[in-house]
Amino acid sequence: MNKAELFQQIKRKSSFLCVGLDADLSKIPSSLLKLEDPIFEFNKQIIDATADFAVAYKPNIAFYEALGPKGWESLQKTLEYIPSDVFTIADAKRGDIGNTSGLYAKAFFETMDFDSITVAPYMGIDSVQPFLEFKNKWVILLALTSNGGSSDFQLIESKSGKPLFHEVLEKSQVWGNTDNMMYVVGATRGELIAEVRKIVPDHFFLVPGVGAQGGSLKEVAKYGMNASCGLLVNSSRGIIYAGKGEDFAEKARQEAEKLQKEMADLLEEYCG
Amino acid sequence: MNKAELFQQIKRKSSFLCVGLDADLSKIPSSLLKLEDPIFEFNKQIIDATADFAVAYKPNIAFYEALGPKGWESLQKTLEYIPSDVFTIADAKRGDIGNTSGLYAKAFFETMDFDSITVAPYMGIDSVQPFLEFKNKWVILLALTSNGGSSDFQLIESKSGKPLFHEVLEKSQVWGNTDNMMYVVGATRGELIAEVRKIVPDHFFLVPGVGAQGGSLKEVAKYGMNASCGLLVNSSRGIIYAGKGEDFAEKARQEAEKLQKEMADLLEEYCG
Repeated sequence: MNKAELFQQIKRKSSFLCVGLDADLSKIPSSLLKLEDPIFEFNKQIIDATADFAVAYKPNIAFYEALGPKGWESLQKTLEYIPSDVFTIADAKRGDIGNTSGLYAKAFFETMDFDSITVAPYMGIDSVQPFLEFKNKWVILLALTSNGGSSDFQLIESKSGKPLFHEVLEKSQVWGNTDNMMYVVGATRGELIAEVRKIVPDHFFLVPGVGAQGGSLKEVAKYGMNASCGLLVNSSRGIIYAGKGEDFAEKARQEAEKLQKEMADLLEEYCG
Repeated sequence: MNKAELFQQIKRKSSFLCVGLDADLSKIPSSLLKLEDPIFEFNKQIIDATADFAVAYKPNIAFYEALGPKGWESLQKTLEYIPSDVFTIADAKRGDIGNTSGLYAKAFFETMDFDSITVAPYMGIDSVQPFLEFKNKWVILLALTSNGGSSDFQLIESKSGKPLFHEVLEKSQVWGNTDNMMYVVGATRGELIAEVRKIVPDHFFLVPGVGAQGGSLKEVAKYGMNASCGLLVNSSRGIIYAGKGEDFAEKARQEAEKLQKEMADLLEEYCG
């Protein structure tokens, strides 16, 4: 899926919502646990309930990896179940030397057929490029994350006065283009989103940290939106665990719809 | 395994060799391909052939992940086959927000029973700490890697005149201790290894980049060794693909023994 097609979908659904599929055996309704593949069954019902409002799904790979080979089977089935016009993100935070990144790319782009993968920048250009060599696939590079520890290194100022995340944005934007590279930009501080938008005006951002992690959707749109929307805002727990009982899918649908309605207004206001 | 036990093993085998288990279906002898689990069979023979000379084994997780659920089964079987007194490293370069890193830790320390995992530092303290909460398990944090792209960010100087990898070493060394934290330190430049050793005098280093990536074992020992050895030097392709035919295990054994003999001399010279 290229950038224009993604924007088409955003306009069609009046939404830039990404639903995080962080299915956890200890949190899904107990009635599912007796089924053969509870994780897939949970995801399937969440996808059915939210696909009208979501333009992207983002399985957090750790949740599947923690379950061993069976987890990978649930992940594969989930991925195949996602409607083909919805963007898929392997939230895997991978990155290694060239030949190894090439194998991670193979794992997520060939063995599985994700549209994109999140990648950590610490090892530099040759750890990122192997992912960019796959046609119609995307790298979503960590720039500014939303967790507490993000200030440990991402905000360190270099001699030239720029925090590390600026260096990451400036250097990496020429490795790919706006059709194969996005950035992870945390939603915790509006003025930082504005800073990022200045450096990479045309790239899409994947924004975690709205909801459970405390960011405001309005701030994100105000400071981060561009003429092609340029935002995928993720919500995981706030949607998939909105209900804890048999009605979890219905509750998830209500939460997703609520966010979609807010997003429709914001699209009109900032991307008219 | 704690640091003292690791050093015991190093003294007993007169070796600080780590063998990288980067088994690749396109490179292993074709005679293995007709077996039910060629990757495990290859690893098994490599382990049998090299266990006298290796103090650690390091499967590169990407090689297994690229094969889907079957790859994870081969990995699990390989891990179970490694003799229990040999240190095991999941070379996975993981790292994410706290609850997610906790799940990666579960994947590699509980679902599987690795002694250690390589972790990327970009997201800071809360992306590393969940791994450190497991008793008798280790984080091997990326500090200075051996690939070309390592200079993109790791060498950027901060306002205080320190390159980023210094900041990573200085900040992170208080997150854990010398019994649960090591560092990845590339072998490509001796004087940089000396710099790292000055900042973290007592930690173990995992050193890739000897052999195929061009580093010199003697330089690594000269600049990096401390009173408890403090080094695990990895060789992957140089050992496991030393032979391409039926005699691959015998050839691997010869290469491992050659390195072990060099290491025995270096241990005597610099860690007497």
